Amino acid sequence: MPTRSTETRGPLGLSPSSRVSVAPLPRGSVRFAEDGFFGAWQALNSTTTIPHCIQQLEAAGTIDNFRRLVGESEAAFRGPLFADSDLYKVLEAVAWEIGRTGTSAYDAFADSMIDLIARAQADDGYINTWVQGGMSDQRLTALRWSHELYCLGHLVQAGIAFARATGRRDLLETAIRFVELVDRELGEGGRNDIDGHPEIETALVELWRVTGERRFLTLAERFLNERGHRTVGEDHLGYEYFQDHQPIREVTEATGHAVRQLYLATGAADLVIEQDDDELESALWRIWGSVHHQKMYVTGGLGSRHRDESFGDPYELPNDRAYSETCAAIANFMWNWRLLLRTGESRFADEMERGIYNAIAASTSISGTEFFYANPLQLREGHRSEENAPAERRSWYNCACCPPNLARLVASIDAYAATGDATGTQLHLYGGGTIAVGDATATVRTEYPWNGRVVITLDRPLETELRLRVPSWSTRLTVVVDGAEAHPAIERGYLVLPAGGVTSRIELGFDDEIVTEHPHPHIDASRGTVAIRRGPVVYCLEQADLPDDVRVQDVYLAESATFSPAPPQKGLDSPSILVRGALVRDSSRQPLYSSSPRHPVGQPERELETVGLVPYFRWGNRRQAAMRVWIPTW
Amino acid sequence: MPTRSTETRGPLGLSPSSRVSVAPLPRGSVRFAEDGFFGAWQALNSTTTIPHCIQQLEAAGTIDNFRRLVGESEAAFRGPLFADSDLYKVLEAVAWEIGRTGTSAYDAFADSMIDLIARAQADDGYINTWVQGGMSDQRLTALRWSHELYCLGHLVQAGIAFARATGRRDLLETAIRFVELVDRELGEGGRNDIDGHPEIETALVELWRVTGERRFLTLAERFLNERGHRTVGEDHLGYEYFQDHQPIREVTEATGHAVRQLYLATGAADLVIEQDDDELESALWRIWGSVHHQKMYVTGGLGSRHRDESFGDPYELPNDRAYSETCAAIANFMWNWRLLLRTGESRFADEMERGIYNAIAASTSISGTEFFYANPLQLREGHRSEENAPAERRSWYNCACCPPNLARLVASIDAYAATGDATGTQLHLYGGGTIAVGDATATVRTEYPWNGRVVITLDRPLETELRLRVPSWSTRLTVVVDGAEAHPAIERGYLVLPAGGVTSRIELGFDDEIVTEHPHPHIDASRGTVAIRRGPVVYCLEQADLPDDVRVQDVYLAESATFSPAPPQKGLDSPSILVRGALVRDSSRQPLYSSSPRHPVGQPERELETVGLVPYFRWGNRRQAAMRVWIPTW
Repeated sequence: MPTRSTETRGPLGLSPSSRVSVAPLPRGSVRFAEDGFFGAWQALNSTTTIPHCIQQLEAAGTIDNFRRLVGESEAAFRGPLFADSDLYKVLEAVAWEIGRTGTSAYDAFADSMIDLIARAQADDGYINTWVQGGMSDQRLTALRWSHELYCLGHLVQAGIAFARATGRRDLLETAIRFVELVDRELGEGGRNDIDGHPEIETALVELWRVTGERRFLTLAERFLNERGHRTVGEDHLGYEYFQDHQPIREVTEATGHAVRQLYLATGAADLVIEQDDDELESALWRIWGSVHHQKMYVTGGLGSRHRDESFGDPYELPNDRAYSETCAAIANFMWNWRLLLRTGESRFADEMERGIYNAIAASTSISGTEFFYANPLQLREGHRSEENAPAERRSWYNCACCPPNLARLVASIDAYAATGDATGTQLHLYGGGTIAVGDATATVRTEYPWNGRVVITLDRPLETELRLRVPSWSTRLTVVVDGAEAHPAIERGYLVLPAGGVTSRIELGFDDEIVTEHPHPHIDASRGTVAIRRGPVVYCLEQADLPDDVRVQDVYLAESATFSPAPPQKGLDSPSILVRGALVRDSSRQPLYSSSPRHPVGQPERELETVGLVPYFRWGNRRQAAMRVWIPTW
Repeated sequence: MPTRSTETRGPLGLSPSSRVSVAPLPRGSVRFAEDGFFGAWQALNSTTTIPHCIQQLEAAGTIDNFRRLVGESEAAFRGPLFADSDLYKVLEAVAWEIGRTGTSAYDAFADSMIDLIARAQADDGYINTWVQGGMSDQRLTALRWSHELYCLGHLVQAGIAFARATGRRDLLETAIRFVELVDRELGEGGRNDIDGHPEIETALVELWRVTGERRFLTLAERFLNERGHRTVGEDHLGYEYFQDHQPIREVTEATGHAVRQLYLATGAADLVIEQDDDELESALWRIWGSVHHQKMYVTGGLGSRHRDESFGDPYELPNDRAYSETCAAIANFMWNWRLLLRTGESRFADEMERGIYNAIAASTSISGTEFFYANPLQLREGHRSEENAPAERRSWYNCACCPPNLARLVASIDAYAATGDATGTQLHLYGGGTIAVGDATATVRTEYPWNGRVVITLDRPLETELRLRVPSWSTRLTVVVDGAEAHPAIERGYLVLPAGGVTSRIELGFDDEIVTEHPHPHIDASRGTVAIRRGPVVYCLEQADLPDDVRVQDVYLAESATFSPAPPQKGLDSPSILVRGALVRDSSRQPLYSSSPRHPVGQPERELETVGLVPYFRWGNRRQAAMRVWIPTW
């Protein structure tokens, strides 16, 4: 077993071959306090969301699908054909939660599920309840839609999570038995075939890291290289949907099903980390640019179309029709994490932050038990016609990929906050709590993301270098070290505090001014509007915060509008922003199209004294009504 | 047989019970000259499009589907399950074309097809090649998707067209035999069931008009009233898609599949005309308002979503993602025609005109042999990902509803141009040619829609009233009667020239200024842009008309931009508009989102000396590249 891999005890390990600029810290190096944003979210995840997921897995029949295979249930198969992955992701969440807090609350569930999965596994290692439950003649031969390797990928990740977080290896061994079967059938010398939904790739690289067995890395690379040759076969959704239209090394644009694209990119990044593959790495930079410079919502949401859950054309970013699947934002978070490790550049942490405080955080209700699948940036008055997913949170979905994905991410979010290298520690995500910085313990006190002040106290003088990310949105910065204003160097987006440079206290003041974001001129859907952001948090206008006689779609921001921080709006728990200078004009009687001489647009009819904007991630927690992130300017 | 019905000899008859303000004129009352817009289009339709359709019906297997039933083909069923309707619509086109010109060019085709259909018909009158070809156990029992009554509706319309246009009644009798079967099974006392795709309703009302048999009107009303009670059964597309979510009398908003909604509204309008049904008529005004005040593109295109081919939310009118199906614009034309007859109000003719010169005309290529199915108002550079239909014209479609629908409409467009009532004649659509005005023949000379000048000469003094539509887009108007400026009264949108008021010549000067159209403030997709219109024609900017180093998405219109009429752009046949004052700024290096202090939008980089805009209906006739109707203003 390689020594570095188990040391991380978190969602990404390293192998002796890993080439990274910065490395994950051993799990537990960062602990978020429960009164901070991340700590409170992790607590809610632990006390509410994970138990809710477990309950829903039972109610949805996901667990019965396994029980049936061992004669403990008579129920018919329920859920989509990839339902197994929901259980695996919840198990992964449980493992990370055990690793985070040492809780034994889930032990009985974990014991029984891990045992059940092992018993449901066929003698040759195969496990997939949809196929075993009645489609056995299709075993590993209908991979375009079967999701067998997708589910296996999640099983591997759950097994690894238990191994890393708790030392328990039985689930991992179950997973490995299936991987070995897959390797015999589809590995070198076997059939050329790939899964219609990428995911196995990143899991196999992690399996290499956790086991040190190179055959798993080889298999991951094989699956990656086989992709793009139209192996999945003809389908009305086309090859782009399956990420099989072009070898990834030749790809120049993010296309097709957004989650598939982003999981594939994640696996590719893992391979780049392990094998220094220049050609593949170049492709990743192209895809990254396509995503982040042309196809991403300001919330970090990804996937412009419900149809095929896909990226659209460059700059095709409709706010009302945004799909912006929760899982796509999570996948992007995981991909950017790998690129951050690879390069040590803050722009990847910036994108992780954008996603986590906006598209990802929006997915979960204040209660922790309801979830968005799609995350639109606008809900129109009179909205009635859904496409793939509703514009409201639901307690569960038939296709329940998102809630368990949230659970596993939130349970491990601390593991993404900081990294280390030979010279010290790098802090990427700010949140109240403690961080191991060499032998020192740093205590972080901050109301981040609600303002830009971060105070870090050390229990002993800094003996290794400490790097602190300067968020890209912070245009001004103050640094006070041990009481004196300081001007440390900034490298790759990080303040560099050298070993010996701090005795006990660092005070950061990021620019937390409330600003207007302007869309790129090619984003037609948002022309003539601005979004309001403070720090990493994007705000929105909800009907609930307007007078009864004013409708969201009739509100404009005057050029002279001013913004100020404010307490939470009624019914919410997070700070809001008060706007002075919001103008109203009722356009309900205006014709649909007017040639100018006849129908002047007119003047605003009134100015609202103040109107509250709420964090986008808290929208839809009151009655579901009109909402918009991008607000027209007058 | 009622006397009035056959007199029209065109696409809409009247019965003794019809209550209309103005009535269709007998076919032949209007004849368009071939050097005018409509006349040239009808000539192209006759020489090229109809023969092309016939050839494609053969190539696509649509005709073989019938032949197989009588042992004359071994081919498997081809096309969608409603393929029969393609043949019926082409037959209808042929009939109107015979009625228009007296051509015998299609006689052999018509003979053999009418004979083939009759032979394929079952003894009890049933005819549907998909069901007869292998799904006989589903006869009239799987109507949600079977389209059996939809196809029958088109068969009835084709039969009526032959009866009216040529006096030939054999196809109509074939159709009636099936209607009688349907009446026995689904009519009064029979099962309650409806077709998933409205169309039969309007056909049955026409059948009442042409035969005088009230049972057909009763059956139409029955189908209309049964709809809206979730009769079609549960489907993943939902009840709105099938127009079965709510009784039409209660409907307040246009929803669901656009063509289904509009054909249903057309049938409802027919029933209102026949039965003076206030409740139903009120519902139609609500739906009409929803369509025309909230859910219509400036081109007259309808249906904002590829997904489910549906209307979206109010003001959800994305230009790039517009579905705007050709058939929806045609259905809206037919619906507005009925409302025009009912009310005599010009606003309905305005909408017919908007559609015919823009969304409908766009569908056909200059060659007459290629057709858009979807009619987006924007094509992005780098577009690659289609949804339901491509952003380019194709010579045929597997689901080939649109080309035959165009063929039947264009072959009969003259029948929609004018109406009559007890006091005289009303002219709605202007085009060079002749019109019977009482006993007089009026000759119309005009370059309409390219400019606003229309000269009407009479071969004898006006003995009955003549009403001339003033298009809603014409804000100024000059009228010269017999050489002297005149100021006739305007009623319901029409200039009223009384009997005896004109000796020989009327000169109309409509306001043909080039104007900018502004979108309603709730149309987020078009905020900050204008569309350029002259008369009824909407223009667009195509990549082909820009310098090589300027891209469509980087062009803006200055506030001071001026517009002038110009000859056709290279490769096209229709006048263009020259813009002076188009500004260019390359935004390709600008970040996707910018907070203002850091990334000012900057100033335009250059002004184009001139740039040509081409009629929207001619876009995509050169190489397929970026296009936009709504152009951002600087």
